[in-house]
Amino acid sequence: SETIFVGQYLVERLVQLGVTKMFGVPGDFNLGFLDFVEDHSKIEWVGNCNELNAAYAADGYARVKKGSLGVLTTTFGVGELSAMNGIAGAFSEHVPIVHIVGVPSTSQQKNKPMLHHTLGDGRYDAYYRAATQFTIAAASLQAKETAAAEIDRVLTECLVMARPVYLMVPTDLAYERIPSYRLKTPINAEPPQNDPDVEEFALDEIVKLVETAEQDAIILVDACAIRHNVIDEVSELVKRTGFPVYAAPMGKTAVDEAYERYGGIYVGSISHPDIKEKVESAKLILSIGALKSDFNTGNFTYHIPASRTVELHSDHTTVQYAEFPGIGMKRLLPKLTARLQPFRDDARELSVPPFVFPVPTEDTDIITQSWLWPRMGQFFRQKDIIVAETGTSSFGVLEVPFPTGAMFVSQILWGSIGWTVGSTLGVAMAGQDLGYKRTILFIGDGSLQLTVQELSVMIRSGVTPIIFVLNNRGYTIERYLHGMERKYNDISNWKWTHLLNTLGGEEGKTCQSHLVRNKAELSALLDDTTFASANKIQLVEMLMDPRDAPSALKRQAELSGKTNRYVAELPSGIGEAV
Amino acid sequence: SETIFVGQYLVERLVQLGVTKMFGVPGDFNLGFLDFVEDHSKIEWVGNCNELNAAYAADGYARVKKGSLGVLTTTFGVGELSAMNGIAGAFSEHVPIVHIVGVPSTSQQKNKPMLHHTLGDGRYDAYYRAATQFTIAAASLQAKETAAAEIDRVLTECLVMARPVYLMVPTDLAYERIPSYRLKTPINAEPPQNDPDVEEFALDEIVKLVETAEQDAIILVDACAIRHNVIDEVSELVKRTGFPVYAAPMGKTAVDEAYERYGGIYVGSISHPDIKEKVESAKLILSIGALKSDFNTGNFTYHIPASRTVELHSDHTTVQYAEFPGIGMKRLLPKLTARLQPFRDDARELSVPPFVFPVPTEDTDIITQSWLWPRMGQFFRQKDIIVAETGTSSFGVLEVPFPTGAMFVSQILWGSIGWTVGSTLGVAMAGQDLGYKRTILFIGDGSLQLTVQELSVMIRSGVTPIIFVLNNRGYTIERYLHGMERKYNDISNWKWTHLLNTLGGEEGKTCQSHLVRNKAELSALLDDTTFASANKIQLVEMLMDPRDAPSALKRQAELSGKTNRYVAELPSGIGEAV
Ligand SMILES: Cc1ncc(C[n+]2csc(CCOP(=O)(O)OP(=O)(O)O)c2C)c(N)n1
Ligand SMILES: Cc1ncc(C[n+]2csc(CCOP(=O)(O)OP(=O)(O)O)c2C)c(N)n1
Ligand SMILES: [Mg+2]
Ligand SMILES: [Mg+2]
Repeated sequence: SETIFVGQYLVERLVQLGVTKMFGVPGDFNLGFLDFVEDHSKIEWVGNCNELNAAYAADGYARVKKGSLGVLTTTFGVGELSAMNGIAGAFSEHVPIVHIVGVPSTSQQKNKPMLHHTLGDGRYDAYYRAATQFTIAAASLQAKETAAAEIDRVLTECLVMARPVYLMVPTDLAYERIPSYRLKTPINAEPPQNDPDVEEFALDEIVKLVETAEQDAIILVDACAIRHNVIDEVSELVKRTGFPVYAAPMGKTAVDEAYERYGGIYVGSISHPDIKEKVESAKLILSIGALKSDFNTGNFTYHIPASRTVELHSDHTTVQYAEFPGIGMKRLLPKLTARLQPFRDDARELSVPPFVFPVPTEDTDIITQSWLWPRMGQFFRQKDIIVAETGTSSFGVLEVPFPTGAMFVSQILWGSIGWTVGSTLGVAMAGQDLGYKRTILFIGDGSLQLTVQELSVMIRSGVTPIIFVLNNRGYTIERYLHGMERKYNDISNWKWTHLLNTLGGEEGKTCQSHLVRNKAELSALLDDTTFASANKIQLVEMLMDPRDAPSALKRQAELSGKTNRYVAELPSGIGEAV
Repeated sequence: SETIFVGQYLVERLVQLGVTKMFGVPGDFNLGFLDFVEDHSKIEWVGNCNELNAAYAADGYARVKKGSLGVLTTTFGVGELSAMNGIAGAFSEHVPIVHIVGVPSTSQQKNKPMLHHTLGDGRYDAYYRAATQFTIAAASLQAKETAAAEIDRVLTECLVMARPVYLMVPTDLAYERIPSYRLKTPINAEPPQNDPDVEEFALDEIVKLVETAEQDAIILVDACAIRHNVIDEVSELVKRTGFPVYAAPMGKTAVDEAYERYGGIYVGSISHPDIKEKVESAKLILSIGALKSDFNTGNFTYHIPASRTVELHSDHTTVQYAEFPGIGMKRLLPKLTARLQPFRDDARELSVPPFVFPVPTEDTDIITQSWLWPRMGQFFRQKDIIVAETGTSSFGVLEVPFPTGAMFVSQILWGSIGWTVGSTLGVAMAGQDLGYKRTILFIGDGSLQLTVQELSVMIRSGVTPIIFVLNNRGYTIERYLHGMERKYNDISNWKWTHLLNTLGGEEGKTCQSHLVRNKAELSALLDDTTFASANKIQLVEMLMDPRDAPSALKRQAELSGKTNRYVAELPSGIGEAV
């Protein structure tokens, strides 16, 4: 009977699940485990600059590499806690990450000496307790007899629930030998079958509603369609039924945005008026994978009553007011497609507003938000992955139609700035595995300051994203929410075009930086085929106005302003309203 | 009767406690509160690049500004969780920080909408729950009637316990009006009086032990003497009794290192042999503020039996095996000094090894660890604050005698790398308040990569530290612990001398960078009076050998190696021992 070290077992499982990169930072409690990683030919250790960035990278990797997961390895206390915001974001946004933490040996955990990286009061369970707030499952490996089963349990949960899990690997246990036979049975992360009677009942109900709606039914796709990986099923549904289809911001590119029956992005009251009208007047809305957060719904301004809604989720279905727990969309969707296909000819009579965003003619040379985004639309190509940071970027890029096969990546619910720098690294690496061509990042100057060092890991590992930095001298999105003229919304102006060279690149050789001060310079750059070919890492600093914002952000800010009541009540001078 | 906004009340309390800087990052849930900060003339908002760095800065500030505290302000979820490792470090190392978190309004906290920065599952208490693992007190302000009392409660705990506290300030509550009269009563953070009978009894016991020891008693000072601010009391004790005095690493500079009866650093088995002999053979050890972590005790190799030890702590005293709960050192020390003063003449007969570290003559030009640290000793001056990052730096600088009035700052128990960059910012700012002259940082190339952006905040705010970067191409301390040749211990080589200019400085004007390749270049630089005057921020890149380490680190690594048993059991090729 063959044996294997516990640490090796874990690595093998990850490799079986398609993991090719592991992110993190070494520390003395995980070094032994990292030997297994470094020695494995099918997985690569990507040493990050810090743990938060590493968590972000694992998140970006997992988003692109659907069906697989992101892996983060950190060290006890100092490392794992640095990554906590990254893990919580993955929890919030339904991204599967396994967080492997190298921890003191099983005997140290019993005797609790005052080791470095401890709290000094003998509590060895505090990090575990904190971690369980932000993970869907956790395991603290303590014995070799149960280690493999525990590893399999958390990996399965991670994949099925599409949320992070926490795994403590003690230094000694990583080097315990266990039988390897379990590895022959692959981890099964398929969602369970739906109860056939309930499923049939729900399908009948949905079909009845579609009939009643006559041809006036639309499909609305959202975040969880992507995260719970039903993109192919949705694509079948959409194409075979011909129903008009729209996406919420977090569902952008779940459906091909060049598809003729795709109408664009619905965000409640801040939607384009045509889209708002079409969606809100439809007699039936088939909502797939909805995640109704404030920024994903135009501050909760959906005007769609439950009586006209069917919602499909990963683990339940609702039809008008009726809930069907346990009826998950992965299994339901193909059956629904078969049942709805007959409506196709009628459905196709329903008009869909074309999703276009023409470049406006403006009488200023300055790069405006109103011009920038449609102009970028002309630059995007098939097989691009486009990452947008929270800020004017995430609002601006939403309205740009993406070409077939392009992917949108953003963190609209969690909204932790700096996230895109780490995640772009992971996205670009996963993109390489899957044949994507370019990774394009839009990020504000403020956000880039949080996590800038990860550019150096991109340089070292040879990924070649194009990074557009919107230099508007501060936190513009915040200026719109509160404090337009406040100093706390200002930031230091860096020499942005020196960054790549300073952080380990060789300007002109392994990296290229560009400054664009106006529309003509930016247009010329975008039209330059060498630039567009993206065969080295590039950074483009774009000079923009601190008080300029995409119209969707202005509308969102107005809506939030109403919620932030305190601003209006103030005596003048204290806390100006915007 | 006068009223004040709750947010203003909080700011006033902080100002009363001597706080001049507030660290953090804005976010839409704290912007309203930040207006009060920006509008106050006695406190300054230091916008940091990210929240972890801000927490580190608050930590550094609090360490220097004894009796006051560090203040960190972040936003709900994304901000506060990013800072968690910084707060946990302050908990571990007994540093008072108040972490103010701007959170959704009280009504949002009741209705729990899916706001951005939430976990998407309706849990609004998860961050609070996580925070309580790493704070000594927490308050979630919910009503204006109790807000002021709650603020006072957590601030008092923070100061008395010298550990971080957590304070949630909802957007609406920051703008509720409350009576201001409480502000007239200052916060009382004095430690309580000791029970006079118990105290007297303990004093008698200690005096008896000193008598029995004849003149062979020594004093050993450690971390909590600094953190619980008994430096003046210790200085009195030391000078009036004439007992030989030594310090643990975390107690370095609690006692004037130029004092003639000071013998240097005791770290168990890795101490200099003379020091080890003197301390371990003493008949009585008066230990003050001990914190016996692995790196602070030479991996738990103290050879001092309890029968020969008296330990004074902030909240208890032990005499041999007897414990006296509630007898705290702040009150006890002056009385102890009075009782022990009569032993002075005898005590002074006991010889103390001189604490010196001569610069060796070596036949290599390379900057070696054995040469670097004593050479730096010649550079240090009175009123320097010397910050050392975990790595070869923290081990190397320990053995250097500091001049009178110089302060040592390091994070020996928590050991989170990158910490010194943020904390140097806070240290330098607090140093300005207190008349310190220079702030000098020693940091490894690996550590600087975690938190490098905070250099830009130093530049913007005009503090002028000298930053020595030990460029040894990776994680040397880790190489000594495990994986000397492993790739995971390598890092990207940056253009270190470009950093300040890239991150907002003007090379030669507002900042100055230097590369030193050998001993002669470094010595010349140290002797340059312009350089030494430190009137602009400076960075010195020092080229060093990846396999060179201070001797104390080598000894520590040997001791840890014995604990990391797994290394030895391995078949060859998997996980080489060092
Ligand atoms: C980790 C974290 N800290 C703070 C915030 C609050 N915040 C949201 S957007 C923003 C400013 C972003 O500015 P920038 O990246 O320059 O974008 P712009 O809107 O100027 O394009 C801040 C500070 C956050 N979301 N996440
Ligand atoms: C936040 C955090 N992550 C990881 C570690 C593990 N760790 C301890 S020391 C070290 C390497 C430090 O390297 P460097 O700063 O270059 O110092 P050197 O020993 O080379 O002088 C690492 C990665 C840690 N202590 N803290
Ligand atoms: Mg900006
Ligand atoms: Mg190094």
